[in-house]
Amino acid sequence: MAVDRLSATLFALADPTRRGILARLATGDATVGELAEPYDMSLAAVSKHLKVLEEAKLISRGREAQWRPCHLEAEPLRAVEAWLEDYRRFWDRSLDSLADYLKTMPDPPFAKKRRRRRT
Amino acid sequence: MAVDRLSATLFALADPTRRGILARLATGDATVGELAEPYDMSLAAVSKHLKVLEEAKLISRGREAQWRPCHLEAEPLRAVEAWLEDYRRFWDRSLDSLADYLKTMPDPPFAKKRRRRRT
Repeated sequence: MAVDRLSATLFALADPTRRGILARLATGDATVGELAEPYDMSLAAVSKHLKVLEEAKLISRGREAQWRPCHLEAEPLRAVEAWLEDYRRFWDRSLDSLADYLKTMPDPPFAKKRRRRRT
Repeated sequence: MAVDRLSATLFALADPTRRGILARLATGDATVGELAEPYDMSLAAVSKHLKVLEEAKLISRGREAQWRPCHLEAEPLRAVEAWLEDYRRFWDRSLDSLADYLKTMPDPPFAKKRRRRRT
């Protein structure tokens, strides 16, 4: 069965090792050996994770046959953010309702500064 | 193996039917039967998807034994957004570079208004 792009991206991200690899690549390109260093797993196991990330187009790999450094490709993550966009109103709205509710209280004993989403 | 919360959320989202169910619930609570309507699958198959979503705490279900309406719980999605936050700079930076590049052109024939992220 063909898997849609967004599903492939989310599946690739649904693993802490693969997210760890992306976090490492966010600091710069790296070889399989370098990526494997923090993990107690074989190069083959790390390569499998890289294959999933590569198929989801979350990483690309250099052409040099021996080293093939990995490079982060953030574009699919943007699609995840775009998908999330429709749901953001749920937590924004929850905060708005809470703020409105607090405003109706004469002297709310537990009122705190409204948490703002980082932008 | 215990699966971390974020992995469970992303795994649950990595399926178009489950994302479709969330989209439906974003318009209001619904029963399994209502959620199954748009899909050419058995109630049992839809129930399996609901179980994955429930385990990931993306939905909660009413207590009424017979109907148990499903309710969207957006909180785990917020964790996904928080995780994405670290990577946003990659596409924001790409846009900045593009904008800077376009500024260096005397009369860019294809210059468009810079796309701005919706906030």
